[in-house]
Amino acid sequence: MIILGIDPGTVRVGYALLKAEKSGLTLLKADLIPITSKKGILRLEEIHKGVLNLIKTWRPDCLALERLFFSKNQKTVMSVAEARGAILLTTSLAGVKVFEYTPLEVKKSVTGNGRADKLQVQKIVKLTLPATAKLDAQDDVFDAIALALTCYYNNRLTFFD
Amino acid sequence: MIILGIDPGTVRVGYALLKAEKSGLTLLKADLIPITSKKGILRLEEIHKGVLNLIKTWRPDCLALERLFFSKNQKTVMSVAEARGAILLTTSLAGVKVFEYTPLEVKKSVTGNGRADKLQVQKIVKLTLPATAKLDAQDDVFDAIALALTCYYNNRLTFFD
Repeated sequence: MIILGIDPGTVRVGYALLKAEKSGLTLLKADLIPITSKKGILRLEEIHKGVLNLIKTWRPDCLALERLFFSKNQKTVMSVAEARGAILLTTSLAGVKVFEYTPLEVKKSVTGNGRADKLQVQKIVKLTLPATAKLDAQDDVFDAIALALTCYYNNRLTFFD
Repeated sequence: MIILGIDPGTVRVGYALLKAEKSGLTLLKADLIPITSKKGILRLEEIHKGVLNLIKTWRPDCLALERLFFSKNQKTVMSVAEARGAILLTTSLAGVKVFEYTPLEVKKSVTGNGRADKLQVQKIVKLTLPATAKLDAQDDVFDAIALALTCYYNNRLTFFD
């Protein structure tokens, strides 16, 4: 079972590929989707291309995507929601099952505390996946790993049926 | 020159196909994209399918899409922005050029008054396109016609070069 976690932000889009087996968890890859355009449509096309490449290369069984929460900055929300629309469409058309989690659900699943801060989440991620212990990556990448972990924790009972 | 106007709402998505020739304007079709799902991903897939069908059937030269404006209801904004992301990606990948207009730009282009209300816009649309005079359609459909008209007014000098 391979889980693709994606954290779409306004500037960067982080992703993580987590392999879940009965014997344990392996982080296959975690990085940012290459995006050079800041403009709406071209940016959406780059995100689409990046997600499609990940699906073709790694053939994930499901996608764990951050569900948007409320923000004071409506312009930010709109830009992230447009990216979410493009990601959801791309993965869905490729036949990949989608799970969505709010930041609160991610924090609660990974650390046990829905109010954990970013550093606490990263600390637990590094303890859970030793391969990430020395990973010096953007927050967006750690968020994507945490999303993939959340998907694993919430589905592991059915994954290996 | 065929212009596809699309007005994505939370529930309905209106569209209009406007043929612009030197001799005048013809409304080819105006309706709602068939959508049965209320849920996020399936709804995005239906919107994608509907837009792709319109592109294949009518081969529009460009898309005129409503640019999202600020709203008090963030949940509504997110849902519409996700639909916008799916529509932008679908048309852009199909090679259709995209123009975006805010409601204010549409009102100003169609009626000359950026503060015109919906009824005033519909009245002018009906005067401009006699075929719509007896059209008994949803607001979303009239908004899509107004978007296509806006695109025509803003580009007619270059369209027929």
